[in-house]
Amino acid sequence: MKESPLFWPAYLKGNTLFVLDETLVPKQLKYVKVKNTDEAVKVIREMKTRAFGQFLVVLSTFLLELERNPELNGEELREKIGNIAHSLNRSRPTFPFAEVTGVVVHWAQGALDAGQDVRAAVLKNVHGYLQGIRYRRMERVQRIAANIKSGDSVLTHCNVSGELAMAAAICLQQKKDVQFYCTETRPYFQGAKLTYWELKKMGADVTLVADNAIATLMADKMVNKVIVGSDRNCANGDFANKIGTYQIAVLAKEFKVPFLVLTQPSKKIASGADIPVEIRDEKELLEFNRKKVFAGKVKGLYPGFDVVPHNYVRKEIAINVH
Amino acid sequence: MKESPLFWPAYLKGNTLFVLDETLVPKQLKYVKVKNTDEAVKVIREMKTRAFGQFLVVLSTFLLELERNPELNGEELREKIGNIAHSLNRSRPTFPFAEVTGVVVHWAQGALDAGQDVRAAVLKNVHGYLQGIRYRRMERVQRIAANIKSGDSVLTHCNVSGELAMAAAICLQQKKDVQFYCTETRPYFQGAKLTYWELKKMGADVTLVADNAIATLMADKMVNKVIVGSDRNCANGDFANKIGTYQIAVLAKEFKVPFLVLTQPSKKIASGADIPVEIRDEKELLEFNRKKVFAGKVKGLYPGFDVVPHNYVRKEIAINVH
Repeated sequence: MKESPLFWPAYLKGNTLFVLDETLVPKQLKYVKVKNTDEAVKVIREMKTRAFGQFLVVLSTFLLELERNPELNGEELREKIGNIAHSLNRSRPTFPFAEVTGVVVHWAQGALDAGQDVRAAVLKNVHGYLQGIRYRRMERVQRIAANIKSGDSVLTHCNVSGELAMAAAICLQQKKDVQFYCTETRPYFQGAKLTYWELKKMGADVTLVADNAIATLMADKMVNKVIVGSDRNCANGDFANKIGTYQIAVLAKEFKVPFLVLTQPSKKIASGADIPVEIRDEKELLEFNRKKVFAGKVKGLYPGFDVVPHNYVRKEIAINVH
Repeated sequence: MKESPLFWPAYLKGNTLFVLDETLVPKQLKYVKVKNTDEAVKVIREMKTRAFGQFLVVLSTFLLELERNPELNGEELREKIGNIAHSLNRSRPTFPFAEVTGVVVHWAQGALDAGQDVRAAVLKNVHGYLQGIRYRRMERVQRIAANIKSGDSVLTHCNVSGELAMAAAICLQQKKDVQFYCTETRPYFQGAKLTYWELKKMGADVTLVADNAIATLMADKMVNKVIVGSDRNCANGDFANKIGTYQIAVLAKEFKVPFLVLTQPSKKIASGADIPVEIRDEKELLEFNRKKVFAGKVKGLYPGFDVVPHNYVRKEIAINVH
């Protein structure tokens, strides 16, 4: 399968983790080298990589540290793993890294309690966990491609970390004639910077449009399918995703365009009402490339994501749970 | 009435027309001096002023040239007026300036045919015409204010050349408690640059949001009214306005938010289907302040405006026809 750099934006090679600097994409394809926990915390704090990349960084940091500390084992190693988890959890206070690091600490503690080799248990489990995720994402890419027919014109918003671009590559192999439209995705331009770039890199026919152009595209029947990702999923099917997703969902309903969502099934949150709306720093709206876009003092409001009710969703393409 | 600079962006003073350079707003409030037809054509070509400003420039150019050519009269003056009209018509080939210049030529010809003073007739009619428009726009500002109640939170899109900002000033005088939200209005940022600035200048409480934030604003009941302008109006109530207006109209329907449109009643176009969609140069989408926003070769699509079906409109605030 042809792979987009955004699909797996951090990979281990020997004792180094190479993390794609997504802030430079598409101008440069540059990887930041991470060798220990401090450097991992730094790369997360500086937001060089986004949600999925950060998740990879967090898990891979344990592997880096096991490599760097061959002398540790048993109780000492369990303690070291606890300290790494603590540092990573503090890298972004509002981010639920503890859910991930907690699992690794749990594996270490479990091995210790059972009198097993802590090092071997953690290595095996982290590697297995990463491989499982990789495999399930690959499976979903196949299912996304299966949901795209020849003649389709697919609108997407923000970025789904490689999966849609790779599905586009599969469609090309299958000689399907498919067009893609991607939104700019203001204020951060993820669509213009990441999605456009990776779809084009995969050889897809892609056109960039302003976030304002959706109604016209749909009214003129220029798109016949919407595929977007989701950041958080609720038990009832509601989901959170980048700001702008909700209005695309409403427009899809109005213009009878099927609205497909890539989901990660979860029962932890009952419904969208239980997801707090994250109001991000207005600077992100008012600045571009770290320069003020507008003169004078401007009051902005930047809700970071939308919570979309499940009744707008035509179909979920869920990641398989094994 | 407190006046916004955008309400009347070109004014005559002696033998000079001062044209607000809207491309510099809000960084600078600078007026370009126009003294003759050539300079008027230049200011239009360089898009220093937008639709209404261009209309003012076109009409005022005849006044400038009457001032500059005191020796002309009768047949000579009629001919001169015809030449000015021709030059102005050619300044933007796809713009219907001929509708306006044709009226002035008609006045000149009418006076000539009736044996009247061509100069006096043209002066009187152009001045009267401009004053009439000014008066009717002032009336509409009053009616916009009457449609805004204390407690309202009004969303607007793009820019309506001063009228909404001046209505906001009237609401303030009337001690109405009103909030405004304005969209950025990508790709040209008219909302962020012009609307935000003039609403704030008038003392209004205004917040800037990304074009992507509308569904969330409406779902969270943060806006209870939409007021937008219109560039062209059809006999059946359909209208054309800046790209992004259509999706706001659909969202307003979905979330039951009244959608009000400022219109200029016209029977010339039967319905929206008769308005050609203007596809503007993709450069306007891909560049910001004349620099490329994104690296590499990017294919963009930039429909310049939306044609909104009349069934989305709750209320028209039409300019009075006298």
